[in-house]
Amino acid sequence: MKHARIAFEGAIHAATEAGPNLIRLADGRILAEDAVNWLPPIEPRTTFTLAINYADHAKELSFKAPDEPLGFLKAANTFVGHRSHTLRPADVAFMHYECELAVVIGKTARQVKRGQAYDYVAGYTVANDYALRDYLENWYRPNLRVKSRDTCTPLGPWLVDRDDIPDPMNLNLRTTVNGVETQRGNTRDMVFDVPALIEYFSSFMTLSPGDLILTGTPDGIVNVVPGDEVVTEIEGVGRLINTLVPFPA
Amino acid sequence: MKHARIAFEGAIHAATEAGPNLIRLADGRILAEDAVNWLPPIEPRTTFTLAINYADHAKELSFKAPDEPLGFLKAANTFVGHRSHTLRPADVAFMHYECELAVVIGKTARQVKRGQAYDYVAGYTVANDYALRDYLENWYRPNLRVKSRDTCTPLGPWLVDRDDIPDPMNLNLRTTVNGVETQRGNTRDMVFDVPALIEYFSSFMTLSPGDLILTGTPDGIVNVVPGDEVVTEIEGVGRLINTLVPFPA
Repeated sequence: MKHARIAFEGAIHAATEAGPNLIRLADGRILAEDAVNWLPPIEPRTTFTLAINYADHAKELSFKAPDEPLGFLKAANTFVGHRSHTLRPADVAFMHYECELAVVIGKTARQVKRGQAYDYVAGYTVANDYALRDYLENWYRPNLRVKSRDTCTPLGPWLVDRDDIPDPMNLNLRTTVNGVETQRGNTRDMVFDVPALIEYFSSFMTLSPGDLILTGTPDGIVNVVPGDEVVTEIEGVGRLINTLVPFPA
Repeated sequence: MKHARIAFEGAIHAATEAGPNLIRLADGRILAEDAVNWLPPIEPRTTFTLAINYADHAKELSFKAPDEPLGFLKAANTFVGHRSHTLRPADVAFMHYECELAVVIGKTARQVKRGQAYDYVAGYTVANDYALRDYLENWYRPNLRVKSRDTCTPLGPWLVDRDDIPDPMNLNLRTTVNGVETQRGNTRDMVFDVPALIEYFSSFMTLSPGDLILTGTPDGIVNVVPGDEVVTEIEGVGRLINTLVPFPA
């Protein structure tokens, strides 16, 4: 099943899919998906983000793949929902999207082994993990100016239940900019797959329901500018639409 | 005024000071401060942490002071309250405490100038920002194994209202280990003071109520081991007691 969080007529509603371009609010009303404000499908607690977790992306950046997952954290201010606007700072020369499978933790996880890792997953959503490259000092652990700007992590549209995605490690990802495909990959090319990431983080930290793991992006990242419509899409999980707007306006 | 969050008889209570070693729950009951479980005085939303933000500490580490604040984030699993136990992993050779002034944001802050920065502060508490040095790759942006372990950031006892601390930039800090003073400093020696930090972070991110800034530690950090009682204390703000226990037990 697919779950969304919708702001409509001054309240926040749980919603599900009700057919092509239609959603059903928990109170039964059916609405066009472009007639509502989409929120991130969860309010993330701790958000882990992976740097350089696709072999082809490491190659694109002329790096060797890392020996252990390169995890860093994201701040709460950065998340927005489907069909939202993302602010592109005027003083930045290079800003790129990143299409990523986002894993939502469903129960408390401590020292989980990879064979049991999926038991701790609630479901999946799509993240667009924009990066402001001008501020990047190194690729291994990007700083807050690069990765925690307001509105710079669109998330959604849906939280898709774990059991609806039989093989999360074989999903096509793609990004289009104004309808033109610029990024294509498959989750099988992750350096550290979803079970490995859950095993790794839970080996030294407790993961809790609502924690989120953004699993990294494949190659194909290009500069995007105000006015661009960026669609990040993962097979079976969702198609996340975002539009860049200038900041300041 | 001082505010605490207390777990007692299966519920969470707001509490205030009621005399030496006594607290008053919101329902009027007065209890001994060692008869209850202290929680962190706030549930942090985004937590910013500063690396190398005291001139003497930079010198201790043989670094030059940084040109801009070295901010990174902490995960939600790491916080515990006053009088709690902190797990010291058996496989770590060097773990040190860090006594830090923690600033709690009180209202939404965007592009705040330093002259108005204190308007956005709700109050202050004490943090003990333990570090697991074995995993440190560099001092500038410590990784999750160093700074986001379970129980490794005691916080409290109190959230002290901003107006009760007339000059947060002139407060003595000290740490004792088993009653012996090992760290002493003063907040006036911060490289970037509290108004500068609020100006900096809010220049590129929106800060929200409940966000927390841990402002760094002065010199005097030593290895601590299971059984040690570590007391981090800031003049007028609080005296935070923590005991190290072995992990695994």
